[in-house]
Amino acid sequence: MRIALGIEYQGGAYCGYQRQKHCPSVQENLENALSSIAAEGVELHCAGRTDTGVHAIGQVVHFETRSERPEKAWVQGTNTQLPADIRVVWAKPMGEDFHARFSAVARQYRYVIFNRRVHSAVLAGRVTHEPYELDESRMHQAAQALLGEQDFSSFRAAACQASHAMREVQRVSVKRCGDFILIDIQANAFLHHMVRNIVGSLIEVGKGHQPIQWLADLLALQDRTQAAPTAPAEGLYFVNAIYPEGLGVPQAPLDQVLWQM
Amino acid sequence: MRIALGIEYQGGAYCGYQRQKHCPSVQENLENALSSIAAEGVELHCAGRTDTGVHAIGQVVHFETRSERPEKAWVQGTNTQLPADIRVVWAKPMGEDFHARFSAVARQYRYVIFNRRVHSAVLAGRVTHEPYELDESRMHQAAQALLGEQDFSSFRAAACQASHAMREVQRVSVKRCGDFILIDIQANAFLHHMVRNIVGSLIEVGKGHQPIQWLADLLALQDRTQAAPTAPAEGLYFVNAIYPEGLGVPQAPLDQVLWQM
Repeated sequence: MRIALGIEYQGGAYCGYQRQKHCPSVQENLENALSSIAAEGVELHCAGRTDTGVHAIGQVVHFETRSERPEKAWVQGTNTQLPADIRVVWAKPMGEDFHARFSAVARQYRYVIFNRRVHSAVLAGRVTHEPYELDESRMHQAAQALLGEQDFSSFRAAACQASHAMREVQRVSVKRCGDFILIDIQANAFLHHMVRNIVGSLIEVGKGHQPIQWLADLLALQDRTQAAPTAPAEGLYFVNAIYPEGLGVPQAPLDQVLWQM
Repeated sequence: MRIALGIEYQGGAYCGYQRQKHCPSVQENLENALSSIAAEGVELHCAGRTDTGVHAIGQVVHFETRSERPEKAWVQGTNTQLPADIRVVWAKPMGEDFHARFSAVARQYRYVIFNRRVHSAVLAGRVTHEPYELDESRMHQAAQALLGEQDFSSFRAAACQASHAMREVQRVSVKRCGDFILIDIQANAFLHHMVRNIVGSLIEVGKGHQPIQWLADLLALQDRTQAAPTAPAEGLYFVNAIYPEGLGVPQAPLDQVLWQM
């Protein structure tokens, strides 16, 4: 049996999705909880590994098991074994041809900036604070240079282990809702730190410290040392993994699982 | 000098607004921080005391001081002395006729329910989880019985110390935004646990366990033992204290300081 799960987490307490030896991970918590429900060891594959402190509302994972359990056991049962900042939202049996990582044709991220002089007491840790007033229209214009299949070396972490830096950005937008700035980006796949490095440079454009043309210039340079510092993890959400429709994988409706924006 | 401050807090770590002997309060943290900026003892008065675990985005407080400080010192300076879950958002010198509590002509609360089978991993502690599907239209209709000046004994905590139970509810609405149910209520003043007791009963109507008429019936009974249990604190936000316009007190724009809904 191959089971897919939809996963939400608040990343603040974890050194990222992936299991690591000396610090708590989302994967470790999930595998332990699922193993206890399955009464056998469970090994997970995920749609997209997230970094330390990054959140997810539409992570997708899958695992193999010989244990037959009702959907309720995989969802509510597993949740009783998890900390409150990790939730299984849905579970679905899938065919042998489904793979959480390799079947996904695109990933969506949302970056949330709280753009007010004083940070939010209520959403601290869930959004990135930027006290300097940002011009979201400049940021949106600048971001359009990212569209299409391009070499994203300028926005790739030094530690990135991908074999090449070509990625296709399919959608990107920057909009304001009151004091919130929302940066939505969809690509076939992402390099390590790619969204946070892009956001760091967009913030410079939003402040007026760099021209709208800057993102295009940085892309052309293919040099990470020229772009702005990496934006903090706390504003970043893995929103959705997108699969071919025929596979029937539920999508996380952005406006229903994150706050409405 | 009389200074008014706009205050936000996430109530989870505090035994309420009011200073208490053996547990951490918002007031104690604020008074200590302000005293260090003022270099003298500071005593606060607030627009509305909130209970253990209740949040605020538009709490208003005032204090007297002989220390002259720029607005930046009262805001940014004080924030450096506060935990991240309490923020001073604005500061304003006020006339001797202003009193955070006695000048306020009305208070607004918002109660946020996350109405999905599985709770939110991201907003746990900031919203109340209700897995049973609620009919927000029934809740809205039922809530209209609360409007006007009435005796709210049925929704008053046993520990309430108010001299009488007459309160005037000026606005009340229940609406759905995706998986969120938002209950907004404005009154001249509130009794102890009044919003949470009202919400507890509205949830019963939303589930279809009680008729739409039930809130009107409960009001007429003037008997707390007949209403539903108190709804949890974690979904409740003190949103605004409303003052006569001439006083020039900033209002917290609900859609800008809480998430957009």
